[in-house]
Amino acid sequence: MRVFDSNWMQIADRLERDDRIVLPVGSTEQHGYLSLGTDALLAERVSVEAAEPLGVPVLPVLPFGMAPYFARYPGSMTLRIGTYVAVLRDLLDCLAGQGFRRIAVINGHGGNAPVAGLIREWISEPRPERVQVLFHSWYNAPKTAEAASRFDEDQYHGSWLENFPWTRVAGVEIPEGSAPVLPRSQANNLTADEMRERSTDGSLGGAYRRSDEDMRVVWDAGVAEVRELLEEGWL
Amino acid sequence: MRVFDSNWMQIADRLERDDRIVLPVGSTEQHGYLSLGTDALLAERVSVEAAEPLGVPVLPVLPFGMAPYFARYPGSMTLRIGTYVAVLRDLLDCLAGQGFRRIAVINGHGGNAPVAGLIREWISEPRPERVQVLFHSWYNAPKTAEAASRFDEDQYHGSWLENFPWTRVAGVEIPEGSAPVLPRSQANNLTADEMRERSTDGSLGGAYRRSDEDMRVVWDAGVAEVRELLEEGWL
Amino acid sequence: MRVFDSNWMQIADRLERDDRIVLPVGSTEQHGYLSLGTDALLAERVSVEAAEPLGVPVLPVLPFGMAPYFARYPGSMTLRIGTYVAVLRDLLDCLAGQGFRRIAVINGHGGNAPVAGLIREWISEPRPERVQVLFHSWYNAPKTAEAASRFDEDQYHGSWLENFPWTRVAGVEIPEGSAPVLPRSQANNLTADEMRERSTDGSLGGAYRRSDEDMRVVWDAGVAEVRELLEEGWL
Amino acid sequence: MRVFDSNWMQIADRLERDDRIVLPVGSTEQHGYLSLGTDALLAERVSVEAAEPLGVPVLPVLPFGMAPYFARYPGSMTLRIGTYVAVLRDLLDCLAGQGFRRIAVINGHGGNAPVAGLIREWISEPRPERVQVLFHSWYNAPKTAEAASRFDEDQYHGSWLENFPWTRVAGVEIPEGSAPVLPRSQANNLTADEMRERSTDGSLGGAYRRSDEDMRVVWDAGVAEVRELLEEGWL
Amino acid sequence: MRVFDSNWMQIADRLERDDRIVLPVGSTEQHGYLSLGTDALLAERVSVEAAEPLGVPVLPVLPFGMAPYFARYPGSMTLRIGTYVAVLRDLLDCLAGQGFRRIAVINGHGGNAPVAGLIREWISEPRPERVQVLFHSWYNAPKTAEAASRFDEDQYHGSWLENFPWTRVAGVEIPEGSAPVLPRSQANNLTADEMRERSTDGSLGGAYRRSDEDMRVVWDAGVAEVRELLEEGWL
Amino acid sequence: MRVFDSNWMQIADRLERDDRIVLPVGSTEQHGYLSLGTDALLAERVSVEAAEPLGVPVLPVLPFGMAPYFARYPGSMTLRIGTYVAVLRDLLDCLAGQGFRRIAVINGHGGNAPVAGLIREWISEPRPERVQVLFHSWYNAPKTAEAASRFDEDQYHGSWLENFPWTRVAGVEIPEGSAPVLPRSQANNLTADEMRERSTDGSLGGAYRRSDEDMRVVWDAGVAEVRELLEEGWL
Repeated sequence: MRVFDSNWMQIADRLERDDRIVLPVGSTEQHGYLSLGTDALLAERVSVEAAEPLGVPVLPVLPFGMAPYFARYPGSMTLRIGTYVAVLRDLLDCLAGQGFRRIAVINGHGGNAPVAGLIREWISEPRPERVQVLFHSWYNAPKTAEAASRFDEDQYHGSWLENFPWTRVAGVEIPEGSAPVLPRSQANNLTADEMRERSTDGSLGGAYRRSDEDMRVVWDAGVAEVRELLEEGWL
Repeated sequence: MRVFDSNWMQIADRLERDDRIVLPVGSTEQHGYLSLGTDALLAERVSVEAAEPLGVPVLPVLPFGMAPYFARYPGSMTLRIGTYVAVLRDLLDCLAGQGFRRIAVINGHGGNAPVAGLIREWISEPRPERVQVLFHSWYNAPKTAEAASRFDEDQYHGSWLENFPWTRVAGVEIPEGSAPVLPRSQANNLTADEMRERSTDGSLGGAYRRSDEDMRVVWDAGVAEVRELLEEGWL
Repeated sequence: MRVFDSNWMQIADRLERDDRIVLPVGSTEQHGYLSLGTDALLAERVSVEAAEPLGVPVLPVLPFGMAPYFARYPGSMTLRIGTYVAVLRDLLDCLAGQGFRRIAVINGHGGNAPVAGLIREWISEPRPERVQVLFHSWYNAPKTAEAASRFDEDQYHGSWLENFPWTRVAGVEIPEGSAPVLPRSQANNLTADEMRERSTDGSLGGAYRRSDEDMRVVWDAGVAEVRELLEEGWL
Repeated sequence: MRVFDSNWMQIADRLERDDRIVLPVGSTEQHGYLSLGTDALLAERVSVEAAEPLGVPVLPVLPFGMAPYFARYPGSMTLRIGTYVAVLRDLLDCLAGQGFRRIAVINGHGGNAPVAGLIREWISEPRPERVQVLFHSWYNAPKTAEAASRFDEDQYHGSWLENFPWTRVAGVEIPEGSAPVLPRSQANNLTADEMRERSTDGSLGGAYRRSDEDMRVVWDAGVAEVRELLEEGWL
Repeated sequence: MRVFDSNWMQIADRLERDDRIVLPVGSTEQHGYLSLGTDALLAERVSVEAAEPLGVPVLPVLPFGMAPYFARYPGSMTLRIGTYVAVLRDLLDCLAGQGFRRIAVINGHGGNAPVAGLIREWISEPRPERVQVLFHSWYNAPKTAEAASRFDEDQYHGSWLENFPWTRVAGVEIPEGSAPVLPRSQANNLTADEMRERSTDGSLGGAYRRSDEDMRVVWDAGVAEVRELLEEGWL
Repeated sequence: MRVFDSNWMQIADRLERDDRIVLPVGSTEQHGYLSLGTDALLAERVSVEAAEPLGVPVLPVLPFGMAPYFARYPGSMTLRIGTYVAVLRDLLDCLAGQGFRRIAVINGHGGNAPVAGLIREWISEPRPERVQVLFHSWYNAPKTAEAASRFDEDQYHGSWLENFPWTRVAGVEIPEGSAPVLPRSQANNLTADEMRERSTDGSLGGAYRRSDEDMRVVWDAGVAEVRELLEEGWL
């Protein structure tokens, strides 16, 4: 139940019976040959598919996240950490004010992980009614990661693991073979300029693609794990 | 050319030849019988249609804006003004850092207008290269407003003027007739709770709908006016 | 009743019978041949004259506003938008904490308009007692604008419409004739340096002066409109 | 040379020959029987009289400062410390950007003293040209304090030392005698509510008034000390 | 080389030859029977021991971190995320301004991990000279974690893994046996009040203690891993 | 009773009987030949010695303060004022939330004085229970200053008055004689670069050292004055 496919009366009706809602958060950033929207598209889609049979509403994805290291690849966007935590705080305050009591933030981008600190802070604060917030990075949650690792242990930014039929760009051919791996210890300490120089196509390493059958297995695991969270992840 | 339908290399190629980009900004908020995403959907769609023949890239719409007065209608979201201006600042900084020199912010929500203050501030600041930023509220720009006023001078939130085939919600019947008008002087001074009490269905007044033919006239005017801006609105 | 011509006991007495107060907000910025204080002087004066017969207290004008585009004209001052909304928030919090329940912010400067976004946010927030806040830009409110337009439709920064006996500078002769008009679409996209180059005397266009009789008509309309607001503008 | 009695061209002319400017900062807060504007009026007046023969421009006083302890006396206003330092930073940035290189902040309110921390921070930052900033609390600068102490060592908020012909309120009789002293150690730890209870008329102690002759001695010392600062207080 | 055991001339001398420095960051929070300073004491000590033979200076530990979930255990302190990232930004700016080019932030508290987001942002920003910053959570770095796991896979807050001779409190007997495990999925969603109710002694699970010999093995691994980082962890 | 030498249960026990706590705040900054930690070490030590016989808990010293003027002496650290007041606010909020009702902030660094503004603001705010906060700069409190002045009126940064056995650096010989005095009026207006040039060893003037007997007199006065504050300084 996408919020954008609903009017407020429908959301209000639903809220009287069920106090859950999903907020997908992504990023607009280079993903090599794949769409600049990869992290946002996946976070929103996995949320929608997972929530569908439960009737839980899904907000539009927050398309901008924290990706300062990719700032030199045109089309990539990044919010400063102070800005990003303010956005999340405002959105959580809205939802709590309307009566939502179980909020799942479904994250599609590793760089957004620090917002978990804001969520812990927000949960801990006294408020009139108890509100739970889950922060779930769908792509490396245990069961999804396990499914992916059955195919290939190398799982890097811009590689096969993000290459779904729905993150490819029309008319763009994805190379065969693999990109050289940029060790994480290095990647974490590069400036935005160095990052662009080191990774000429934007991939951080590993195979560029796998079969659609393999990708379907990973995807189904991701959807199932989010659905399980929405059903059983609450206190 | 949607940024989400592109990879970074395509945006980089484009940028070498043309330094324009579009950032649509909307809102997720009650629109009476219409979609909670009305302002975001329209801002993004009018941007994409206007930019299409020009090849100018269009970023994903920022779906959350400033709508504190609607905060009690479930599914409506609002960012605080301090947060919102920080988001815009960060996005403008990103784009300027990548070499975009002509940025059009296409706005679909009246409550976002104060961000024009941030844009004036941002433009005025010294930076190594000259960057222009246009802030254009498409729905009440002169030519679009003129086109709408040919049909009906009453143009309120959640009424016919926002009722396009692409903002209606599947399965929801729009009432005939008109909603009573909530005078703007009153609307501007209501708390979020009072707003919800005063406007029981969320419409702030006027006819709920007009024919698709009429709406097409308004829409075409909106698209044309944005396109003209993208082509000729720069210094 | 100027707050600066009163002590706190007088304000406290008044507050027991009447919960209204006026906060004028202006700007310190170039106005061509006119006083750098034009916007502040007018906002305060129109407030004082309007409130006088009603006995409503008038705070001292906030003399600094948002005018980044004039930052290169010596003597012009500007606050960043984040700062400005913080100032207004603090002042509204003070007044609400003391028991004022109807606050009129009388604005004398177009660049301050974005603060209306903060006011909407502030009004919408839950608080123990209902507080109304009006934001009124006196110089282009309907009746005042109508009075001015009877004389001349060209109404630009630093031109005749701001040229009152009380905004002229002793010993400065105002030129006859008119300044060339800097189109608003251009003005909105200039850097502070470009603005200074384009407008050599600071006027943005139109006649420099009209007769004192004409100006009196405009002024009286402005005072009457603010007074009407203070009397009847509340819910 | 009041900035409000000048246009920008006059300030620009002056700036070419002399890079000094004065920013008076005050407070709008209860002063017992005296004007709510006492601290602002005095800071501005002492600045104007001191700067007059030097031709140094004097900005309009910033009328709002930090006075949280007086927040329960109607008509008193207070800015949060985060807001106040932001205002000062913005104003200093403006002046530096226009070419002023010697800025004197003349303070009339004890509660504003923490802004000296911001000024030290601002001075220390690297900037293209050297800018000096003096922070001078005129009422307790050495020579002025010495002049006052010749009359009475008891110098408290709202007492004789602030009682000048130009801070009295028309029609208000000042009591004879003295207010009981609220020890500073206590005063510093009271909530706003307690402060209002403890000091029923707002004076914090000592004689309410002295002769106009005595006050003239104090005032002349204050003006002379500010003038000396403007002439010789720079590096 | 503790900075607090040095004067500035010694640090300046050192800096001419070696541009590395260590900033330990900890937390002041309940650790069950152990010292409230556990995370700070360990972060500082592991830094000092690791840096000793290298002569790299070690700043005093930042004793306060982010621990909102423990806010109801007296003596626990927490900074909001906006505050914490501001502190780190200021400290990094200082060090970069003095010429340090390789900065190791050695972290002793899981709740501080989000600050890695600020560090990525800071690294990515353009600055005149290249500055590297490592963020290393010593207690779960690969080799240290491997050493600990040889003894017991259960590694929870306030349990044996934090129980070193130098984190015990004089006169406090540590219980034998184990605390019941509070599953992480639950712990992440508790309010501060619930946390205090659920964990009556503050331990989140597992054995309370192991032999000093075992702890020495873990400690030596931690020190060695930090030292290796300081020697070889740079680009 | 150092908080770091306690576990939370001990602090909780204590809190049931006594609602006092001490927060020492210092600075990490050049002190000429003395330790970079001088202000932090002294603030913490004077707090611990004063609180000892009373059993009042003493938090770890906040080692970083505001010292922008010393930013060019390696090893000196400074927080921006906005950051510093945020830290203090967060810490006070924590303590108040746990039930502490009398908090003594014992300060060891002149540059931190502006935080008194935040404390006044914090005290003035309404909160469910009354919380007192004292801000005490131990080194220039009346009795301590009087004790020091018996020996020498010249009391400058980095001179004899900060030269205790516990602030000296092992192996560093302190010069005999005196440093030239940098007048405060100058010191207050220097940039960080100028400060480093003007004060080549970091001392701002006066004798470098006195006998241990003299220093003991000063120290004992300082400890006694803090203890008296903790016992009798409350309302």
